[in-house]
Amino acid sequence: MRKISQKFQVPFSYDVYFTESLFKEGNGLLADLIDAKDKSEGVKVLIAIDEGVKATHPELISNITEYIDSHTLNVEMVCPPLVMPGGEKVKNGGLHVEKLLKAINEFGLDRHAYLIGIGGGSFLDMAGFAAAIAHRGVRHIRMPTTVLAQNDAGVGVKNGINQFGKKNFVGSFSPPFAVINDASFLSTLEDRDWRSGITEAIKVALIKDKDFFYQIRKNATALLRRDGKSMASLIYHCAMLHLDHIASGDPFEKGSSRPLDFGHWSAHKLEQLTDYRLRHGEAVAIGIALDSIYSHLTGLLSVSALNEILTLFKELKFNLFVPELLPDYNTSPSANPLFQGLTEFREHLGGQLTIMLLEDIGKGVEVHDIDPEKMNRALLKLKKFEEDLTNAADK
Amino acid sequence: MRKISQKFQVPFSYDVYFTESLFKEGNGLLADLIDAKDKSEGVKVLIAIDEGVKATHPELISNITEYIDSHTLNVEMVCPPLVMPGGEKVKNGGLHVEKLLKAINEFGLDRHAYLIGIGGGSFLDMAGFAAAIAHRGVRHIRMPTTVLAQNDAGVGVKNGINQFGKKNFVGSFSPPFAVINDASFLSTLEDRDWRSGITEAIKVALIKDKDFFYQIRKNATALLRRDGKSMASLIYHCAMLHLDHIASGDPFEKGSSRPLDFGHWSAHKLEQLTDYRLRHGEAVAIGIALDSIYSHLTGLLSVSALNEILTLFKELKFNLFVPELLPDYNTSPSANPLFQGLTEFREHLGGQLTIMLLEDIGKGVEVHDIDPEKMNRALLKLKKFEEDLTNAADK
Repeated sequence: MRKISQKFQVPFSYDVYFTESLFKEGNGLLADLIDAKDKSEGVKVLIAIDEGVKATHPELISNITEYIDSHTLNVEMVCPPLVMPGGEKVKNGGLHVEKLLKAINEFGLDRHAYLIGIGGGSFLDMAGFAAAIAHRGVRHIRMPTTVLAQNDAGVGVKNGINQFGKKNFVGSFSPPFAVINDASFLSTLEDRDWRSGITEAIKVALIKDKDFFYQIRKNATALLRRDGKSMASLIYHCAMLHLDHIASGDPFEKGSSRPLDFGHWSAHKLEQLTDYRLRHGEAVAIGIALDSIYSHLTGLLSVSALNEILTLFKELKFNLFVPELLPDYNTSPSANPLFQGLTEFREHLGGQLTIMLLEDIGKGVEVHDIDPEKMNRALLKLKKFEEDLTNAADK
Repeated sequence: MRKISQKFQVPFSYDVYFTESLFKEGNGLLADLIDAKDKSEGVKVLIAIDEGVKATHPELISNITEYIDSHTLNVEMVCPPLVMPGGEKVKNGGLHVEKLLKAINEFGLDRHAYLIGIGGGSFLDMAGFAAAIAHRGVRHIRMPTTVLAQNDAGVGVKNGINQFGKKNFVGSFSPPFAVINDASFLSTLEDRDWRSGITEAIKVALIKDKDFFYQIRKNATALLRRDGKSMASLIYHCAMLHLDHIASGDPFEKGSSRPLDFGHWSAHKLEQLTDYRLRHGEAVAIGIALDSIYSHLTGLLSVSALNEILTLFKELKFNLFVPELLPDYNTSPSANPLFQGLTEFREHLGGQLTIMLLEDIGKGVEVHDIDPEKMNRALLKLKKFEEDLTNAADK
């Protein structure tokens, strides 16, 4: 038996930009990024837009066209921007990926051409997957339009779609060519979307950065009244923590650990159990609250730290309990369908179950076992916490 | 405008093994590789087999089952091996990828579980793509069963399927977990398949390794009479050159150059134009002959070197001309549909057209322009070369 051991490293790099009014005259960012200045042939660009974004920004498409015309770029927009659904439904099955692949083929995009995606996290997950597998990867520029996508999903290296009813069952690790966070998109978000993006910042603060947590608490009322400056600072800091984490850790998740998924095992399952009635960030808020209570019940987290966490969510007006968390009181706790989320979470990542808990604000700790009995107590506590608040409000 | 520059490296490593009778008692290679020795739970394994391989190795499936049983491994074979078509047709469209994804889902394979593919290059391209995108990558062990797959396609980092009539339109760069080359599979190959795999070795010798070229010439008759030792040595050396090239170059092909695709722009197109009547290796032999003549016509390659190349192909009984190369003599040379292969080749890779030519045996040189008039003369010369040989044989 002979053996050849193959070993190599692949370098990846991309810039994440924070700007405003990207397509207004005078903003040269995109022009500089994609212009094929010294090439004889213009570079091809295909743009895909989340229909929710188009609806709230009816001027977007004409702005894009004018922008590209006015900069006299050596760029060929191969067709008018493709408008596709946004939200989780665009990720269910391969239909929209297929549509983008078709356009990439029809207009002859190559690996050096650009697929620009403008939309929320789910939309970019879908578009990013199409970009990743066409010709084994065309250049993908992400323009996230929600808080969640700008501070979390949109700045990372993952993409994917749902299949067999499982979130992100199909996907890849494919760093984007660049990410452009345009703050102008945030002003038209519904309150729910504005707020729910904040949970990922709270999450990363809780496991990594105590100061950041207290900064969010300090700014909570400003964030609630939709202060742009507070949000810009939150997004920048959260994106930076995410990017640091990716670069210093295990970018393509070869191990069994995924620290940034604190609170996510139940959140992913809850999104499915509620038929995506909850926004991802709303489900994550519940997941974080639940795993924080569980952290306390196992003796890891002090009661005062737990209260600070729950208080912050309530200051931000998050609802922390939905009936799907405790669907049936008569069966044994481990029969709760929510717990199937633990199996699916382990299965998606592989290897040993690894769940992030908290031992302090700003300090996560990984465990490899979850006690269903104790988790059930955490669920009951969470329920009571919400009920007491509601009752107090009613009085 | 603010900017965060993200930069990281991802390390990849995998071993390529050369063995015989992998599933015979006493061969501990696979057992050592996949056994979850110190884990509480057994690791899940799904096996997919090329139906052509099953047909010529009817004992294969029972051998695998016995092998896994007899080694008392901590391994769970989730179902009997799935048998699927082989050859190019398994890569046309997403049907078979879909089937594998379904099985991966149904049997709960995770990222640490194994999808083992046993088959030819096309089969492994398809299975590798399914493994790459399920959960963003389950572990993929490749067991190539043809010369071509063992010395070339199977040892690299690429996978893919054909879509919109274009070869490998969809795919990814995803290094396998391991590659196992079992020489026992080669003995049942048809002569065509045995021989056609040799072309990739000739190709890499021509652009990189003069000594290897003369070694192949020296062994040509032994290879023709199917001498196992000569073939084992050819496969090992060719695989090594390929692996070196990947590790020292641009593994995920971010640039515009792909030196290992010498002779391939026309070969890929010819496969399509002949409706896959030609084996890949047969088409590559023609492509190499064509680009070698073109290299000579441009003054790069000496006539004696050219003759040595053409002679080797004839010693190995390759046919170097098919009518699809010159379908119509009345139109201008550049109207030849074959030349569409240049555009598709550039498009797949992106950026500037980059074609490998030869300046000597063992020394490739890249050019960025192909003169259709001159290429047409190369085609006519190739046609004449074959005709003269045929006429001589008829006399």
